[in-house]
Amino acid sequence: MKSIESSPLTRKLSAFVALSEVELAVLQRLHQRRKSFAAGRDLVHQGQSEQSAYILAAGWAVSYKIQPDGSRQIVDFQIPGDFLGLRSVLLHTSDHGIEPIVDIQAAEVFVSDLLEAFAQTPRLATAILWAVSRDEAMVVEHLVGMGRRDADARMAHFLLELGARLSLVGMGSRAGYACPLTQYHLADALGLSAVHVNRVLRKLREDRLVTFRNGLVTIENYEGLVELADFDPAYLDQTGPLLK
Amino acid sequence: MKSIESSPLTRKLSAFVALSEVELAVLQRLHQRRKSFAAGRDLVHQGQSEQSAYILAAGWAVSYKIQPDGSRQIVDFQIPGDFLGLRSVLLHTSDHGIEPIVDIQAAEVFVSDLLEAFAQTPRLATAILWAVSRDEAMVVEHLVGMGRRDADARMAHFLLELGARLSLVGMGSRAGYACPLTQYHLADALGLSAVHVNRVLRKLREDRLVTFRNGLVTIENYEGLVELADFDPAYLDQTGPLLK
Repeated sequence: MKSIESSPLTRKLSAFVALSEVELAVLQRLHQRRKSFAAGRDLVHQGQSEQSAYILAAGWAVSYKIQPDGSRQIVDFQIPGDFLGLRSVLLHTSDHGIEPIVDIQAAEVFVSDLLEAFAQTPRLATAILWAVSRDEAMVVEHLVGMGRRDADARMAHFLLELGARLSLVGMGSRAGYACPLTQYHLADALGLSAVHVNRVLRKLREDRLVTFRNGLVTIENYEGLVELADFDPAYLDQTGPLLK
Repeated sequence: MKSIESSPLTRKLSAFVALSEVELAVLQRLHQRRKSFAAGRDLVHQGQSEQSAYILAAGWAVSYKIQPDGSRQIVDFQIPGDFLGLRSVLLHTSDHGIEPIVDIQAAEVFVSDLLEAFAQTPRLATAILWAVSRDEAMVVEHLVGMGRRDADARMAHFLLELGARLSLVGMGSRAGYACPLTQYHLADALGLSAVHVNRVLRKLREDRLVTFRNGLVTIENYEGLVELADFDPAYLDQTGPLLK
């Protein structure tokens, strides 16, 4: 049982519920169909039906919507412990696509697996409902922030949110984290041009707030970055389990 | 059991799962603490903890975020059959506020009620997960649409989405629906000024697409409105139950 206790999803759900042995065993079973997927090849296709859902165990992915004019709007990035395409398996057709950014490991989950798991432990159902609610809170925060924050604050907020999410699954701290995203990812996610992303990152570096270079985000001045972004992490709900 | 079968939440969840007698009985119990709330007084406060969740049984509500500058960003409107503050009860502090737009009836639901309900029927847990996923798909659609659609298309998309949601709970059709929203609500939701909302509504009326007057939305040309909005209702997932 040791491995499942240290899995990213277990660490994440533990922020909401203190998991029992039975619940850990159910989580273990949800991880049994673990597979590898190559970077750059869609795992879930927008508009397709009869998709599977996945639990991301290692690596990063991006979820996006293709717009009628063919351009791509990034909705969010997924890190270990996140569900991939849970919405796709519940809705008839997926409203978005999901692509691995690097080679990933993910466990395939069918609706029948979820029904079986929920029957064994309703607390786990509530925990997964929490995780989905938290994802929705993030999208709402992005929606509200998009019009309100300028490019510097938007970038600062994005890097802080990512850091907080990664910390929860043991992959980051207030000092920084490893990050495989390119400037094109940042541009599409934040609604900026790649040139603009470059300029913003240089400014944040020159102001000795944060440096993003060679796949590493180094936070030099955490408090200064929080102030610039007006970042209040309450919506990420990481302060410890509500259900004991 | 007749009343619960015709309740808005039952009608809505039936789009995802064919509900059994047991599941209807559990839904009935979730509705037992039904209360009335007056228009204009917050039901859920942003930033507060230990909130209840509610199932909206009659009337309309609005969920919003207060921004640091004091202005109000509308996240979405809730109609009968929607949960109010489900996220607030799962997260430690609510990331948004909820205000009744008219006098409403809503049933109070505690986390313990959800746990009990999920223990009795895991299919219901999956159905509520579906409803939350559908809410998230709507927020994503708004996020992506905000930058892409001009004011006319944004209004057309908004009125069509609302009509589709109301149809699902038996409160609207392709011909139109009753709607208590003011031009200020529309303005705050769509990121337009009240004057601009007025101008857009006049244009849609003069083009014989849709008329919104005296609390009634009358759709004169459904196909034309769909074309203007580039509206694809797949993300609302209303085509019939996935789980039989």
